[in-house]
Order: sequence, then structure tokens, then C-alpha cells
Amino acid sequence: MFIHSVEALRLHVDRRLAELIPAPGEEPGRLGEAAHYALLAPGKRFRPLLTLLSAEAFGAPTSRALDVACAMEMVHAASLVLDDLPSMDDARLRRGRPTTHRVYGEADAILASVGLLTRAFGVIAEAEGVLPQDRAELVTSLAEAVGFNGLVAGQALDLTDRNRPRTVAELDALNHRKTSVLMMAAAEAGARIGGADAEGRRELGEFARRIGLAFQIRDDLIDVEEGGEHVGKDVGKDAGMTTVVSALGPRAAVAAIEAHLEAADAALARAGCEGRLGAFARSLFSGRKAAA
Amino acid sequence: MFIHSVEALRLHVDRRLAELIPAPGEEPGRLGEAAHYALLAPGKRFRPLLTLLSAEAFGAPTSRALDVACAMEMVHAASLVLDDLPSMDDARLRRGRPTTHRVYGEADAILASVGLLTRAFGVIAEAEGVLPQDRAELVTSLAEAVGFNGLVAGQALDLTDRNRPRTVAELDALNHRKTSVLMMAAAEAGARIGGADAEGRRELGEFARRIGLAFQIRDDLIDVEEGGEHVGKDVGKDAGMTTVVSALGPRAAVAAIEAHLEAADAALARAGCEGRLGAFARSLFSGRKAAA
Repeated sequence: MFIHSVEALRLHVDRRLAELIPAPGEEPGRLGEAAHYALLAPGKRFRPLLTLLSAEAFGAPTSRALDVACAMEMVHAASLVLDDLPSMDDARLRRGRPTTHRVYGEADAILASVGLLTRAFGVIAEAEGVLPQDRAELVTSLAEAVGFNGLVAGQALDLTDRNRPRTVAELDALNHRKTSVLMMAAAEAGARIGGADAEGRRELGEFARRIGLAFQIRDDLIDVEEGGEHVGKDVGKDAGMTTVVSALGPRAAVAAIEAHLEAADAALARAGCEGRLGAFARSLFSGRKAAA
Repeated sequence: MFIHSVEALRLHVDRRLAELIPAPGEEPGRLGEAAHYALLAPGKRFRPLLTLLSAEAFGAPTSRALDVACAMEMVHAASLVLDDLPSMDDARLRRGRPTTHRVYGEADAILASVGLLTRAFGVIAEAEGVLPQDRAELVTSLAEAVGFNGLVAGQALDLTDRNRPRTVAELDALNHRKTSVLMMAAAEAGARIGGADAEGRRELGEFARRIGLAFQIRDDLIDVEEGGEHVGKDVGKDAGMTTVVSALGPRAAVAAIEAHLEAADAALARAGCEGRLGAFARSLFSGRKAAA
């Protein structure tokens, strides 16, 4: 039914990611190594898979969306490197390994992050098989997702008054910027490459927005309930911070996840998307206590 | 002869820069203020003027190149914020004021830099009056100028083995990445918007490359010869580092500047560019002992 399993797509993404940045050992030396370390760390590759499966949901071959999908992972990896810096979350562990700045130092970590972000825009601007008008609009849309109304603002907001109590509405606005905006850009990009109209792109964006909010609540649950070794990144960092989980309690948080997933399904149905996109997104929430 | 004086163009750039990023006081709050502080600090606006005057040299109205010109300044400002960070040059003073991280803290400085860089790509991707194909190619070209073969690599290289002796060829390669690549992107962008063919764009790139190398040598001369108050940024930071000035001596360095400026003029002549671009570039090197 599909040419590649999701697992095979994930491997395609990893192979292509490695081709799109300098190989370790090549110029620019240690900086390239740091970028490679940050980008190719084991991960779910959720954002690029969102792009690929969204393109597929509108009938495009996943191969046509591969480079744009990889750009989404570059942005994600770049954002993780920055979030983990000593001046921000000061994290020690990420994706099961020491954080990039702990291995390569702060300067190379910051420059690798900026290099990956920059490469993402470059890759999109020259994506083969995508019309110039679409490439320009994909750059615009990604820039909005990253910039002063997106990821960057979300991270700044997250660092401000960390221990101030926040309302659930404030937390949703924060989680929207920290998590949903990039997932929305990823899904909308796939839809655009798949030839979706504005309405279809909007519904895919809504689907991804809901998945992102569910994701963030699940992350907060894991932070409360599980140990660091198991999840591969620092946990317990949220102690003292308001999260949806601390604001609502774990039971209501699980219900909120379910409500977001149902709204995500409804958006897909409105867009007339069949195929495995919805099932794939749901699969990420199964098999773990926090999302049960 | 020209609709606006260079000084008027500079004011246009400043006005447009302020419009293109969030106003201080608006969302995202302190982060937006930090971006405003970094971007609107007094400066020569040399890169955006290069774009405007290059467009003009090929017969385009400067207004058509204004947003792309502003994007060049955003990238430049973003790079200065990063260069000045404690983990990099640890600079206290920039453009006559305390560095961004000293006023807003490291986290907001880094995020403001990333926000400005991101905004640059977004502004280019939606530049009015520029064809979609050209917008995509301008993004590609800027991404190359910034990324793992450009500014980012230049800064990483600059931080590596700072006190190791370097050959003049190594220094030229370093200065090329640190300074010339963005000037080349700025001039080539103007030429592209002005409708120059590949040959014309290449010559404008060569013009800007030479100006950039001359610029960097002049900077090194100033670092040796002048006081910090006067130039508005930290000086004496190069003590112990090889520069073109320390490698060749001040007299040969001044001759090298002149050779670069002559080569720059020759490139302009080959491109058939008349008008004030060449005179403008030369004017930056007059009236100061270091460039005499």
C-alpha cells in the first residue's frame, strides 16, 4: 500500500540529513562535527515524518518532500542545542547523550545551531521538485515558525519568571510557541508540497497544533513521573514551574491529551486525509504510562 | 542625478529596519527590545547600502531592493551579537554601547540574534517586487554566506588556536569568511534585483570581496593604532593574534588595502557599473589615519 514503512522513511531522513551537512572530518572541522553530533543524535524524527506523511496524505511521493522534511529536523535540532545552553536550561543530557555544548563547548554549540538553522533555510530554498513560489512561501512560513512569534519567542517566554504561577491559557500559548508552531510548519509544508489548497493546509496545521499541545503535556507528565536514564534527557527540571500537569493534575492532563488527539483526528477528517498520518501520530502516544 | 543621497538612503534603511521587527514594548517583550537594541544601534549600514547601490548600478530603483538590503543588516547585527558573547570574543563594547548580552543577558542576546537571522530569511522570501525565483535564489545565496562555509565557519575558525601564527593566505581565507562573504551576498543581491546577468553578479561579488578584505585589514590597523572610545568597540583584543597587519607590518598592510581597492574598481569597470557605488566604497576608507 505504501512504498516505505514509517521506519524506512525515518532511515531515509537520517541518510539525507547526513548528506545535507558537512561530513565530520571535512571543513569546517570541529564545528561540522558539533553540527553532526547535534543533528544525527538518535531521535524520533517526528517533524520530518510529519512533513513526509502530510505530503503523502495529499498524494505526493514522499521523495519530493524529503529535503524540506530534513530542514524541519535541522531547525528542531538547532533549537534543542540552544535550549540546553548554560544560559538557558543548562541541561546535561539530551537524546541519551551529553548535550552539544558539554562535548564541543559553548561557542561551537551556538555556531553549530546557527549553522543548522541557516542550512534549513538554504535547503528549502533550493529544494528540487518544488516550485520557486512554493519554496519562497515555505521559507516565509518556517521563518514565522522560528522567529519573534515562534520558537524563539517561546523559549524567551519560557525563561521569563519561571516560577511564577501560570494559567492553563498562558501555558497553552507557551506550548504553542515552544512545540506546536514548528510541527504546524512541518505538516503545512508537506501539505503544500502535496498540492493541498489553503483550506487543506490550514486543517493540517490544526492537526499538528493539537498534536504539539498533546506532546508537550505528555512531556510534562514524563518529567514528573519518569527517570532521566529512561527518557534520555534531563528530567525534574520543571520542579517549581507551573505546567499543564501541575495546574490540572495528572488525571485531567491525560484527558487533555485525549481531547487534543480527538481534535487532531477531526481536522484530518475535515481535510479528507486518509492514509497513515493520523495513525502514525497516535502511535507516538501509545505504550507509555504517561499517555495511557 | 540620484533621487536620494547616500545619507538619505541610510535613513531609509533605519526606518525600514524598525518596521521589519517587533517594536519595543510589543510582544515578545524583552526579547524584542534586545533585537531592537542590537539592530538599530548606530552603524554605517554598509551592507544594506551595498545592496541598494548595487541595484542602482544596474538601473533598478533603490526602493525595490530596500527590504533585501535590510535583511543584510539583520544578518550582520545577528553575527555581531554572537561574536561578542562571553563564550566567543567576550566583548564589552559595540557600536559605542554596551554589548547586547551585557544589557539583556546571554539568553535573550542569543535568542535575539537567532530571531534577527531568521527574520532576514523571512524578509527576503516575501520581498515585494522581486520574482519568486529570485527570492528563492537570494535565500540560497544568503544561507551559503552565513552557514558552514561562511560567517559561522569564519567565527569558529577565528576562535580556534587564536594565538597560533597564521600565514597571510590563511588570514585572507579567514577574513574572507568573516567579512567578505556577507558583503558579497549583499552586493550580488543588489545586482540580481537590478537585473544583472551571472557575469555582472560575479563582478559585483568580486568588488565586494575586495572591499571586505580591505575593510578587515583596516579594522586590524585600527585595533593596533587607536583607542576604544573612538571606535566604539573593544580594541586591543587582537594582541597576540596574527593579523595581516602583524604579519606584513603597517606599511605593507596599507599597500594591501590600496591593492584591494584598485581590484575592486577594476571589477566594477568590467561589470560596466557607473554611478556612485565605487565612490561610496572608497569614501569609507578616507579620513582616517589607518587607511591613509
